[in-house]
Amino acid sequence: MSAPPATHACPQALLEAAWELLARGVHARRSPARYPALATVAEGGGATARVVVLRGADRAAARLTLHTDAASAKAGEIAAEPRGALLFRDPGSALQLRCAVRLALRPETAEEWRRVPSAARSVYGGKPAPGRPLDDPATHSPGPDPARFAVVEALVEQIDALHLGRERHLRARFLRREGFGGRRLCP
Amino acid sequence: MSAPPATHACPQALLEAAWELLARGVHARRSPARYPALATVAEGGGATARVVVLRGADRAAARLTLHTDAASAKAGEIAAEPRGALLFRDPGSALQLRCAVRLALRPETAEEWRRVPSAARSVYGGKPAPGRPLDDPATHSPGPDPARFAVVEALVEQIDALHLGRERHLRARFLRREGFGGRRLCP
Repeated sequence: MSAPPATHACPQALLEAAWELLARGVHARRSPARYPALATVAEGGGATARVVVLRGADRAAARLTLHTDAASAKAGEIAAEPRGALLFRDPGSALQLRCAVRLALRPETAEEWRRVPSAARSVYGGKPAPGRPLDDPATHSPGPDPARFAVVEALVEQIDALHLGRERHLRARFLRREGFGGRRLCP
Repeated sequence: MSAPPATHACPQALLEAAWELLARGVHARRSPARYPALATVAEGGGATARVVVLRGADRAAARLTLHTDAASAKAGEIAAEPRGALLFRDPGSALQLRCAVRLALRPETAEEWRRVPSAARSVYGGKPAPGRPLDDPATHSPGPDPARFAVVEALVEQIDALHLGRERHLRARFLRREGFGGRRLCP
């Protein structure tokens, strides 16, 4: 836990730090921000979460991007309830970001598929589908299947940013509907 | 990402590795398993998540324990919908654990409160309550308030364990109602 940079004392500086962390998550393979938790409402009700890989962070559009297998459980969960969350924790900068998002699946573009390294393509596709029973591993036929590769767009509705400084904890909330102007919250 | 230990090839060994990771999370301050994501259904619907600190892991009871401020949003969310998830990711052992849990709040025992280090007690209590607007930080009066310190018990209904080995990905599901016998799943 680092001492809080003086700039974090104002909510807007916390928002700058948030988008810097998200950008590092997209580009730095070892950044903890590359592996957020995606929370969704489970098929039978209640909440569930899994680790995902952050593929894009567009501040102007306030949109985060993930990839998924269209046959995975989360694809169905997103279709049934698009309101979810992406949670980031960066121990190095003592920053936690809770992003309330509206999720949507869309087919990938040919360019997006081209950019997936060939070694990584096999995780999209395969039979049986992810999460299905596999009593005999020999019966699993892997991908790739471009038709199963889908892009998850997460429109950021709110960022709840928490900086756990040694001296004090700072927390602020930024709402899309308020143009992401910040409001300080009790930590 | 380490090569998968041969023992992980069988689901029951994956369950052993899961509980070992959870035990490390409780006792090792630097273990990534100390800081899982807790996913709950948000007050207005949809899913939300935040980082929590793992305080206990009792394999015999299949119960994980957290602490919270009883005035925090998650306390109300748990009361409204107890079905949530605790998500663990340990890059060192390339293990991800998705624990489907049934959550309940209870008051702490005197012994539990005594065990909270005095420097940490001030995060329980304080006015306004966590997550409330704080336009003027000078108006925040901190805790501690023992009456606001609460224990979250998370009864594990299911563990979905994923080992991301270099050679292959192994995934298995363990259900409480089946005595946590493992079933291999497609990764």
